[in-house]
Amino acid sequence: MHTFEQLTELFGNYFSAQQLPTLPKNLYDPCRYFLQLGGKRIRPVFCLMGNELFGEIHEDAYKVGTAIELFHNFTLIHDDIMDEADLRRGKPTVHTKYGNTAALLSGDVMMIKAYQYLENIQTEYLKNILHLFNKTAVEVCEGQQLDMDYAQDNRIDLYDYIKMIELKTSVLLAASLEMGAIIGGASEGSSKHLYAFGKNLGIAFQIQDDYLDAFGDAAKFGKEIGGDIKQNKKTALLIRALEVATDAQKLKLNDAMNNNADNKVETVIQLFRECGVPEWAKALKEEYLNKAMYHLEEVAVQSSRKKHLKDIAAFLIQRDY
Amino acid sequence: MHTFEQLTELFGNYFSAQQLPTLPKNLYDPCRYFLQLGGKRIRPVFCLMGNELFGEIHEDAYKVGTAIELFHNFTLIHDDIMDEADLRRGKPTVHTKYGNTAALLSGDVMMIKAYQYLENIQTEYLKNILHLFNKTAVEVCEGQQLDMDYAQDNRIDLYDYIKMIELKTSVLLAASLEMGAIIGGASEGSSKHLYAFGKNLGIAFQIQDDYLDAFGDAAKFGKEIGGDIKQNKKTALLIRALEVATDAQKLKLNDAMNNNADNKVETVIQLFRECGVPEWAKALKEEYLNKAMYHLEEVAVQSSRKKHLKDIAAFLIQRDY
Repeated sequence: MHTFEQLTELFGNYFSAQQLPTLPKNLYDPCRYFLQLGGKRIRPVFCLMGNELFGEIHEDAYKVGTAIELFHNFTLIHDDIMDEADLRRGKPTVHTKYGNTAALLSGDVMMIKAYQYLENIQTEYLKNILHLFNKTAVEVCEGQQLDMDYAQDNRIDLYDYIKMIELKTSVLLAASLEMGAIIGGASEGSSKHLYAFGKNLGIAFQIQDDYLDAFGDAAKFGKEIGGDIKQNKKTALLIRALEVATDAQKLKLNDAMNNNADNKVETVIQLFRECGVPEWAKALKEEYLNKAMYHLEEVAVQSSRKKHLKDIAAFLIQRDY
Repeated sequence: MHTFEQLTELFGNYFSAQQLPTLPKNLYDPCRYFLQLGGKRIRPVFCLMGNELFGEIHEDAYKVGTAIELFHNFTLIHDDIMDEADLRRGKPTVHTKYGNTAALLSGDVMMIKAYQYLENIQTEYLKNILHLFNKTAVEVCEGQQLDMDYAQDNRIDLYDYIKMIELKTSVLLAASLEMGAIIGGASEGSSKHLYAFGKNLGIAFQIQDDYLDAFGDAAKFGKEIGGDIKQNKKTALLIRALEVATDAQKLKLNDAMNNNADNKVETVIQLFRECGVPEWAKALKEEYLNKAMYHLEEVAVQSSRKKHLKDIAAFLIQRDY
């Protein structure tokens, strides 16, 4: 069996050998530009890991992984248009470099290209894979819509927020693992447990991401602290703080959010601390991580085969901060 | 066997009974709005006709027809954003009514919904249908890109133009017929001839559309005369005129196009006439119609079964003007 790093390299080799057409240039150049910006390829590697949990990696797992990665990149290109984001992975987004029209149509064709990778997998699994792929793709769109809706809605609670991140990011991680499992010949029960592992791991990861924005070590985190706070982003932390704050704390929090003073980030972090938000967030993350690990235990293969998945879960969800 | 009109009604009943989810409202309301604007549903009806040419209509033809119609509507929603079109079927376009972001994401989800209709067809045909659907969908995107590229390129010739309309509109008509034929159990040879019938018919139809813009009877045509001319649209007529015009005529033509005088439409139409464009366009249309009819003849079923397809071809490509 292979480690996450080994599979990342194997998938990277396969993926970079795939060719997009050359013409029309204005359609495919933006696709090529975006794909070569890189990315961690976590989703396709999860697909390979899901397959290998149950047996030798079949070529179909590479095809499905490619479909997943193309789909994921399509959503990023279109999300960047919707969010009017200028940079992605430190480079100009597609619409910034090529214009909105090019980004729109290049995203569209990338999504169809994703489906082209599915058409050649073994007939035996085609229907199941296509079903899960479609269901997940719809959910990702719904998650993106909820994310945009929630930005303008002050009544959302933690339940709404978790549902949104589940759709927007977790289900694709979960489905990547399950599609690999299907190709590996897993039983339906084991496939569903693996899906639940991925879904809960994804939620734990997002909660961690919210936590690190306020309480992370900037050097380790690799991002500036307080980016979400500056934008008044409705993270798990902010939702929790507004839920448990006293009236006086609520007043201070809203005041800090509205006034954008120089010490905004420090003020909000201080209020988070007063409201017990960091401890709460750590406990919530643990809760989802525990759920994830429970479902991994339930997958019916020898424990030794699960080692690499446990390792990557531990790597993604760090406990040492 | 059923006439085109009967199948339009049958498909309309099936299609309107399909339900989109209610939530998220901001995602699905724009989809519902656009689908209820109507449209002739030619493509799904072609799919039913392609099936019935070879046998009883199978429920799968309705599913595939729905996938085709959803895909077609997805392209219209996104094309309208790209073309900054305010109206479609006399009503506000999706982006005009709901904004660009909503139109973008609603189009995306509509396309995935299209693929959901494919996942439940008989396994036996799934791979072939998915292959043709994907190939065609990519071509439609490429056609849209070429259409936008050509608007800014003065060197395109008739060959480029025909290739563009083939991709942008004809291949989907052709594939609709062929997918129906596949479901009907047609041989590969007959399927390909039916595809070629649809492709050439689509090109003939587009050339007729260009012709009618300048030389049609406004009352019969249902559109204002000269819409393409006002926009300096590169139609088959304009490309031909610029190809055969004398230097003096070319000067007049370019002058009329650049100056947008009150009599622009009349001036350009007069120049088209001087260059023999109307006779040429009619002959070109006939040429593609004849190709289409040749391929229909080659489909290996009794001639009597082809009657309704001949009727609809005659209806779409009128000769009495």
